[in-house]
Amino acid sequence: MQTTSTASFEDLLSSRARIGFTGRRPTAAGTVQRYDFGGGRPDPVSFPIEDLTTAFAQMMAEVGREALTYGEAQGYSALRELLVDKFRRHDEIEAEPDNFLITNGSSHALSLVISAFVDVGDPVICEAPTFSGTLVTLRRHGPDLIGIPVDDEGMRTDVLEERLNDLRRQGRRAKLIYTIVNFQNPAGPTMSLRRRHELLRLAAEHQVVVLEDDAYGELRWEGEPLPSLYRLDQNGLVARAGTVSKILGAGTRIGWILAPTAMIPHFQGFKFDGGTNPLVSRLVTYYLRGHMDEHIEDLIAIYHSKRDAMTETLEETLGDTDAVWSRPEGGFFIWMKLPTGGEAKRVVELATKEQVTVVPGMSFMPNGGGEDYIRLAFSYASVDDIREGVRRLGRAIKASL
Amino acid sequence: MQTTSTASFEDLLSSRARIGFTGRRPTAAGTVQRYDFGGGRPDPVSFPIEDLTTAFAQMMAEVGREALTYGEAQGYSALRELLVDKFRRHDEIEAEPDNFLITNGSSHALSLVISAFVDVGDPVICEAPTFSGTLVTLRRHGPDLIGIPVDDEGMRTDVLEERLNDLRRQGRRAKLIYTIVNFQNPAGPTMSLRRRHELLRLAAEHQVVVLEDDAYGELRWEGEPLPSLYRLDQNGLVARAGTVSKILGAGTRIGWILAPTAMIPHFQGFKFDGGTNPLVSRLVTYYLRGHMDEHIEDLIAIYHSKRDAMTETLEETLGDTDAVWSRPEGGFFIWMKLPTGGEAKRVVELATKEQVTVVPGMSFMPNGGGEDYIRLAFSYASVDDIREGVRRLGRAIKASL
Repeated sequence: MQTTSTASFEDLLSSRARIGFTGRRPTAAGTVQRYDFGGGRPDPVSFPIEDLTTAFAQMMAEVGREALTYGEAQGYSALRELLVDKFRRHDEIEAEPDNFLITNGSSHALSLVISAFVDVGDPVICEAPTFSGTLVTLRRHGPDLIGIPVDDEGMRTDVLEERLNDLRRQGRRAKLIYTIVNFQNPAGPTMSLRRRHELLRLAAEHQVVVLEDDAYGELRWEGEPLPSLYRLDQNGLVARAGTVSKILGAGTRIGWILAPTAMIPHFQGFKFDGGTNPLVSRLVTYYLRGHMDEHIEDLIAIYHSKRDAMTETLEETLGDTDAVWSRPEGGFFIWMKLPTGGEAKRVVELATKEQVTVVPGMSFMPNGGGEDYIRLAFSYASVDDIREGVRRLGRAIKASL
Repeated sequence: MQTTSTASFEDLLSSRARIGFTGRRPTAAGTVQRYDFGGGRPDPVSFPIEDLTTAFAQMMAEVGREALTYGEAQGYSALRELLVDKFRRHDEIEAEPDNFLITNGSSHALSLVISAFVDVGDPVICEAPTFSGTLVTLRRHGPDLIGIPVDDEGMRTDVLEERLNDLRRQGRRAKLIYTIVNFQNPAGPTMSLRRRHELLRLAAEHQVVVLEDDAYGELRWEGEPLPSLYRLDQNGLVARAGTVSKILGAGTRIGWILAPTAMIPHFQGFKFDGGTNPLVSRLVTYYLRGHMDEHIEDLIAIYHSKRDAMTETLEETLGDTDAVWSRPEGGFFIWMKLPTGGEAKRVVELATKEQVTVVPGMSFMPNGGGEDYIRLAFSYASVDDIREGVRRLGRAIKASL
């Protein structure tokens, strides 16, 4: 009996098990503070509990036996057809169901692309800052991470070009460019059209695969949507990850990769899960068929008002300092440069005492830095809690100086 | 736009993407023949559609908001508590919730253990024959597979000892012993108690991790259940994979690893899915709380009668040949040595023409062989279809000789 455990297995671990292994147990998602501006957690009040319950009953009555057994290796075909239609209507993408691989959420989609292309020591390019969750996955693959700065138009493609040329001079080649094109997480900008074209030109010239992450793209309340890198690409080098986590609920764990069909089997090769959940794939399909556009409209209104509540209260609370924060056109996050003298580590400590959770900037940096930044999610807390939490955060920041 | 695809990404693929990559797209699960004795598909008539629908409504009303957002990294704690209770009652295992990692089905559980321990070229021991799905996962990790024959008491531990000693003489060491202890898939035997003790003695002496696969253990209608390797082990070397796929429905994709707590973070390190499905984890927990024991009793009766239908009709149809088949005490499968002169490849071809699906023995062999064996699943087809399908299979076998 094994309630105690010995460590005699440890010298049997694979080399991959040792890469980037911190030994840290992830923290339980249950420990949420009152004023939670931490993770990208969807608004819980927006969850369509009743409509999902109705969709479940209808789905089970109609296709319950299929839903409870093994499914298609590439994912439920009716869900892939629904995605074809969605991307045709919203991004003018002419895809086929075979261009999609359904995954256990977007993080799983990203990991499959990373596993298919990245060996230990391979150069991999990402934005600096970039999404902390992807950094954890990337680091488990042992790449040489190269961070490219971000400005109001997204990734600085002039710096990208320099780095690609540097690599070429060294006889090396980047495997992957990872980019978050809309409301970049955490910095906030949407990549401009000319940068999108420029990035694709560089990817083609240097023959690098582009991993386009767009978990939040549907949730835009300002500005015009721009065509995706996947749509603009002419060279079959873009794989695009998406999810229903932010438009329906992260608990469904349904995401996808949209990619050239020739890439799909290479991603499937790292999928050892017996096929992405057939039951939830059907539930999500039944729900979205009837409710997608209308539900997304509701969500846009909710998150728009939450962003406004946060930026207004930031202005009230920190408008007398030289702190700078983003004002994203969509998504869940605000990125803040702390007032002069502010240190993220100290701010996080003091904010925690005020029952406020924020994420320190260092979590988002591929090559260090970020000590004077924090990220605030306005997605989860209620509008009232956002206002009170930002006031408390303002006190914590001022006390830290 | 990317409806056509180029192959310019192919020289960017990682070394791991090339290991064991066949380029074959998995076949769609939709293409089931009338008399399907192929995969380990649960009986579809047994799926508790109505009770699951009721459980879903109750779960959503009570914990819908939790169910639709990110969950605990190690898996839903109430499900892990339910498993603690289940294993205490059925296997006298004193585990804690921290001994469990919830996974996307058993195949995902197995892959996490394999990834944590197996590097390219590492010796890995398994039964010959063994489960074809695990062979695919193992081969993607590039090990040196060593098959150990199976007899009526399960894995031949005398041969295992020889192989372990061979490796020691070569200055090598096996990383993993993969074994299916109950109703071994495909061969059928349950490993005897003395072999269980012997296997654990050898694992401790040679310091090898044991991966115990028990997807079918609950479904026993004959013979006495024996203590699991996990329960018998005194050295913290056993990880045990389980699933609700066979007792509830494979479409739920809920499985687990039960292992020493010190091993769990190493498995989590290969889990890039944002946490196993919080929605279905709660649905399964709500359903099993009210129905587990009673539902398993119903399933045992169903599969018992299906095994009997298959063995009786085999006796009627092939009793006049020297074919030999197993008579498992539980599970889903019968393993058949074809009559003298029979070839699995030819039998599969002729059976397909009779609308009967069976799996050729070669699929289950780690080091070749199996050409004179086939595996028959009695789990999926109805009793009437089992009888008619076996008659058709008998004709195909006789025609092939």
